[in-house]
Amino acid sequence: MQRTLFRADHDAFRASVRTFVDRELRPHHERFIEQRSISRDTWREAGRQGLLGLLVPEEYGGSGAGDYRFSAVLGEELAKVSAAFASSFTIHCEVVAPYLVELTTEEQRRRWLPRFCAGEMIAAVAMTEPSAGSDLAALRTTAVRDGSDWILNGSKTFITNGYGADLVVVAARTSPEKRAKGITLFAVEAGMPGFERGRKLDKVGQHEADTAELFFDRVRVPAAHVIGELDRGFVHMMERLPQERIGAAVTNIAHAAQILAETIEYTKERRAFGQPIGSFQYNKFRLAELVTAVDVTEAFVDRCVAAHVAGELSAADAAKAKWWSAQVQNDVLDACVQLHGGYGYMNEYRVARAWQDARVTKIWAGSNEIMKELIGRDLGL
Amino acid sequence: MQRTLFRADHDAFRASVRTFVDRELRPHHERFIEQRSISRDTWREAGRQGLLGLLVPEEYGGSGAGDYRFSAVLGEELAKVSAAFASSFTIHCEVVAPYLVELTTEEQRRRWLPRFCAGEMIAAVAMTEPSAGSDLAALRTTAVRDGSDWILNGSKTFITNGYGADLVVVAARTSPEKRAKGITLFAVEAGMPGFERGRKLDKVGQHEADTAELFFDRVRVPAAHVIGELDRGFVHMMERLPQERIGAAVTNIAHAAQILAETIEYTKERRAFGQPIGSFQYNKFRLAELVTAVDVTEAFVDRCVAAHVAGELSAADAAKAKWWSAQVQNDVLDACVQLHGGYGYMNEYRVARAWQDARVTKIWAGSNEIMKELIGRDLGL
Amino acid sequence: MQRTLFRADHDAFRASVRTFVDRELRPHHERFIEQRSISRDTWREAGRQGLLGLLVPEEYGGSGAGDYRFSAVLGEELAKVSAAFASSFTIHCEVVAPYLVELTTEEQRRRWLPRFCAGEMIAAVAMTEPSAGSDLAALRTTAVRDGSDWILNGSKTFITNGYGADLVVVAARTSPEKRAKGITLFAVEAGMPGFERGRKLDKVGQHEADTAELFFDRVRVPAAHVIGELDRGFVHMMERLPQERIGAAVTNIAHAAQILAETIEYTKERRAFGQPIGSFQYNKFRLAELVTAVDVTEAFVDRCVAAHVAGELSAADAAKAKWWSAQVQNDVLDACVQLHGGYGYMNEYRVARAWQDARVTKIWAGSNEIMKELIGRDLGL
Amino acid sequence: MQRTLFRADHDAFRASVRTFVDRELRPHHERFIEQRSISRDTWREAGRQGLLGLLVPEEYGGSGAGDYRFSAVLGEELAKVSAAFASSFTIHCEVVAPYLVELTTEEQRRRWLPRFCAGEMIAAVAMTEPSAGSDLAALRTTAVRDGSDWILNGSKTFITNGYGADLVVVAARTSPEKRAKGITLFAVEAGMPGFERGRKLDKVGQHEADTAELFFDRVRVPAAHVIGELDRGFVHMMERLPQERIGAAVTNIAHAAQILAETIEYTKERRAFGQPIGSFQYNKFRLAELVTAVDVTEAFVDRCVAAHVAGELSAADAAKAKWWSAQVQNDVLDACVQLHGGYGYMNEYRVARAWQDARVTKIWAGSNEIMKELIGRDLGL
Repeated sequence: MQRTLFRADHDAFRASVRTFVDRELRPHHERFIEQRSISRDTWREAGRQGLLGLLVPEEYGGSGAGDYRFSAVLGEELAKVSAAFASSFTIHCEVVAPYLVELTTEEQRRRWLPRFCAGEMIAAVAMTEPSAGSDLAALRTTAVRDGSDWILNGSKTFITNGYGADLVVVAARTSPEKRAKGITLFAVEAGMPGFERGRKLDKVGQHEADTAELFFDRVRVPAAHVIGELDRGFVHMMERLPQERIGAAVTNIAHAAQILAETIEYTKERRAFGQPIGSFQYNKFRLAELVTAVDVTEAFVDRCVAAHVAGELSAADAAKAKWWSAQVQNDVLDACVQLHGGYGYMNEYRVARAWQDARVTKIWAGSNEIMKELIGRDLGL
Repeated sequence: MQRTLFRADHDAFRASVRTFVDRELRPHHERFIEQRSISRDTWREAGRQGLLGLLVPEEYGGSGAGDYRFSAVLGEELAKVSAAFASSFTIHCEVVAPYLVELTTEEQRRRWLPRFCAGEMIAAVAMTEPSAGSDLAALRTTAVRDGSDWILNGSKTFITNGYGADLVVVAARTSPEKRAKGITLFAVEAGMPGFERGRKLDKVGQHEADTAELFFDRVRVPAAHVIGELDRGFVHMMERLPQERIGAAVTNIAHAAQILAETIEYTKERRAFGQPIGSFQYNKFRLAELVTAVDVTEAFVDRCVAAHVAGELSAADAAKAKWWSAQVQNDVLDACVQLHGGYGYMNEYRVARAWQDARVTKIWAGSNEIMKELIGRDLGL
Repeated sequence: MQRTLFRADHDAFRASVRTFVDRELRPHHERFIEQRSISRDTWREAGRQGLLGLLVPEEYGGSGAGDYRFSAVLGEELAKVSAAFASSFTIHCEVVAPYLVELTTEEQRRRWLPRFCAGEMIAAVAMTEPSAGSDLAALRTTAVRDGSDWILNGSKTFITNGYGADLVVVAARTSPEKRAKGITLFAVEAGMPGFERGRKLDKVGQHEADTAELFFDRVRVPAAHVIGELDRGFVHMMERLPQERIGAAVTNIAHAAQILAETIEYTKERRAFGQPIGSFQYNKFRLAELVTAVDVTEAFVDRCVAAHVAGELSAADAAKAKWWSAQVQNDVLDACVQLHGGYGYMNEYRVARAWQDARVTKIWAGSNEIMKELIGRDLGL
Repeated sequence: MQRTLFRADHDAFRASVRTFVDRELRPHHERFIEQRSISRDTWREAGRQGLLGLLVPEEYGGSGAGDYRFSAVLGEELAKVSAAFASSFTIHCEVVAPYLVELTTEEQRRRWLPRFCAGEMIAAVAMTEPSAGSDLAALRTTAVRDGSDWILNGSKTFITNGYGADLVVVAARTSPEKRAKGITLFAVEAGMPGFERGRKLDKVGQHEADTAELFFDRVRVPAAHVIGELDRGFVHMMERLPQERIGAAVTNIAHAAQILAETIEYTKERRAFGQPIGSFQYNKFRLAELVTAVDVTEAFVDRCVAAHVAGELSAADAAKAKWWSAQVQNDVLDACVQLHGGYGYMNEYRVARAWQDARVTKIWAGSNEIMKELIGRDLGL
């Protein structure tokens, strides 16, 4: 069944993303895994090809498409090669961009966005802290005013792009006594004294994406680096989470669909007991179930993307898309590993890495449990 | 999230179906359950209101809408009250109608369709046999030529509307040696000598819909009652199964969505241990999961309906929609029973009957296993 | 693998139970379903054969075996024929007996137990109320002292054997302000003025067991009918729930095992597409899964029974056995229905009734959710 | 609930294993992970402590316990630290030992077993081949007679201990035309010309256990290295698989139980939203479910071990224990990762490695699908 979400211009853009993927990512994939990050050259090439500024107006170096579907196309095509490519780039393009575009002053946009779009300035967003996990309102990193500057103290963890980021949007507590209503966002730049990174974290998967702890030890941040309104950081974050979550859903299901398609091919070729293993009825039915799960999920995610484009995606629906797609992705990939037999346990097989990469999607950007809490609240429960 | 499948004319039609449902079905619901069938009066009233001929051209008494979405609306609104209302009417309107409209001669259409649309002639289709189940190609009912007539012998079972049907489209073997390529369809009418019904079957649920065994003992069927081409009955059936299956999917998910919505209300009102039971986190998360499953499935079914309207629904996609929706429906209803506690086991509660009604959807019109076989074949496995 | 739970005397007893089942239950099964109860004659015959007093000392007419395994054997053999036979008899033999044996005065035992053992006096226990469900501590039925008597007011629901019971152990609030610590148990006998039953409830399944609402309208209960200590009723009930729950687990899994065995035979005989349906790989694997689930569960339930015989079964382990066995039973029976195709939806097939009968086991005697709460607390969470 | 499988001597042995584990394995764990194998020193220390010859008669250097429960104790205690420790040692102690003890000549036993028990000679068994997977009867490695010697050609893969093994029991085809009836076992020793290993395979987990491909290029094997009867190798393997599978089940469930216990502690300590995360009802119920699954499975595995000790464990029951325990282990560990949030995705957390380690248990030693095939056949399907 044809998807109805995309038009010809999206298809054309998809072709150009594929070219980028084939030329700039695939040939270096193993290297990026080994070095636990994507090379800066690659970021710059992505910038040159106009992939990084999809949500940024043209006047600041972006393509100003103003149509989230281009971002969805980018996320899908990256996820087909590696979930971690999608993670790393979409944090920059889809998650950080709105902060820098929508909440900034003209001066801030002029200062940051051209380099952001050019891939000269890799961006990250730092919400999660070691002690608080998903409970954003409880964060402990503080920013205390000192003249017109702010002094940041605290730490963040599980920050995608954190090790290499040139600019990090950091959520810090500016009003100690007001939980959610006392948080402000700051743009912290590499090189600011007192801003240190821990080592790249030794994750289960997603090795191509660098992930790090960040430490802020009396980091002096100028007032011009405040993003958005004072004490409104929590709301700023909440308003942007639906886009992050639908973006996650888009890449989750594209990733699963791609590996499933490859697995189906594998089961046609791999033989055991005298026949292709995909022709055994149990496997055949299993694959039928998996294909159905992917197709069903894709229909819902597409519906959400269309709603998002129309400005009508609710937080609850984004939450549904995120947790459901993550669950389906993980279930599908577990079955794909199984269908590969022993080879599914070998890292040289794509399915093995995909299975490891996928595990985090049920946890990050609001765990599946947090998503269910949000949906339950939306039901009035 | 707004569904995008329907337009204003569908919405208007939905309102009129609701009026019919409220006036003609709800007040008599218990009686229909007890008598194990819907009254003939009700069929005629449905006819008067133009509900039975949605897929029939106007010249034969139908509304000639030529837009399957009206049928979908009808199925949804019926299913919200009772899965069995949906079953009984959609067998007539959606499943039998295409045989009588598309495969018939002008004379046949003139003879049958006006009464069909008026609710004067209730219709059924008889494929399944006691010995063969889902294996249509193996059916044993035979039709042997005798002059220009045909002599039918055999039996059918699990025939929805079978007890009360005035016209039954019967699949019979006309070429004994050719499995699938030796089957022809016949319109058998009530009163033909040798055509007998067994008692209404004692089913687990769906009591409002009569279901019966049919027996054909040397039934003489005139040549004018052959539907479609000789020996092409199997293909005729296969070509129409996608519509039957997407129709099943539409009612499956509408049924589940309705009972789930009612269950959510119940969990807000029913209290235990000092709080509404829906506010317990486990129940809240469970309901969040169920709502997600329903929304996700609805998105896919809607996509399939849109494809069907565009003439592009593949048999494999219809199969996906059917089995998946049946599984979700059953899972959702099982959880809804659980959330009702002891009351969920009492037939006076809608959820109890809904749970029993739903069980058959994983079995009929091609079991979930048959669906997976079809999908698996479509994958080339 | 041989079960190691039972010895030769249990096996001999099993043979005698089977004889009873074959002579006294099977031939009248359809009648018991229709009349929504087991005949009093049958109860008396069970009494004559010594089946009702397994947990009652010999001096009061019981067999005084003092070995719960005999009760387990009885429950298993009854469940193999009908889950409702097991429910009805075990409420009497396993659930009520301990109240009458362990909490009573000598005079009470002499008055009630001989008739109890003889099947002259059918017993029930009435805890659940319409408003409170599983929250026993919140019950609203009251008993107010009047001289040496007590005046009972309130109602109970979902009471197995409630319609026909001659003696009902009723939990009532004697200290209004003390939740769990203000409940007392009373033996209410049929014929006491003000004690009325509602109609037999219209349940989804378990039709052989009568189930009713009970109404107490100023029922005068003599002091001699108090069971156990004043205001200690909650503790009395809590202490006896593990036996009720392990008894439920025993019958749950025996029921599932029996229907599964019959289903396996069915799948060897029933053919489709030219082969026995059980030989299709998907079905074969499904049956392998089901058999494993049943065997695994039986091992745990047996371990629990052995612990119970040794006086070492914890409430948490009984809770584990109850919810898990109920879930497995329901999953197995749902799959068995599916394997029967359309016949699985027909009440004349045992599997159809078994599926309906089983649904309540996840709800009653403490729902699966209540069990998880208990286990969670036991983990210190 | 107390397990009833073990006696005092098993408990004493367990204590000694724990000492070994604490002294010899835990302190070097990270090193073994990094070097992708357990050090030879450690093997020798295990030998000195009498852990390697549990199934070997005393006259050949073993402890000759003749009681499989000691092996079970060893497997459990190793698995509690690392699934890979259990894998590596049990392949040697439980899987290879029976070949060398039961199928050998006196001379062979004298030659190999003392060093085997001393940890001087690490052993492996090589069945699986790149092309054939689980289809043992289809193996392509050949052994052709040359004088009294045999010339081996072919390759094996996924061989646990394969990289470091001093002696490998290799299954090779000796009669080309007879599938299962033309296979013979050979003891191939390190250093035999033409016997080469590939690199240690880059697995998803189980890094402490070395796993390798083996290549046989015209390896000359003396007749004295034939294990068991000529052309009976398939039967020899089939007869020993139940012990391998019950051994796998023992370690699967011990591994899951240990990580689950640690996770429960974690959820009591880790706080979010102001309370321990284990106290959230959803998590509490989830943990209750997991604990139940583990306890239920342990009961069955214990029953199987007891049957095995009694010489009564059927191949079908061993298959049930293996696939079910692997599934439960994987489900439990996936939930444990989730309960750890982001930390569950970091390799420094035990749960992360445990989750990766566990994935292979559904695949190796006969995949879950192969197990279901065996069970299905045993049911006569």
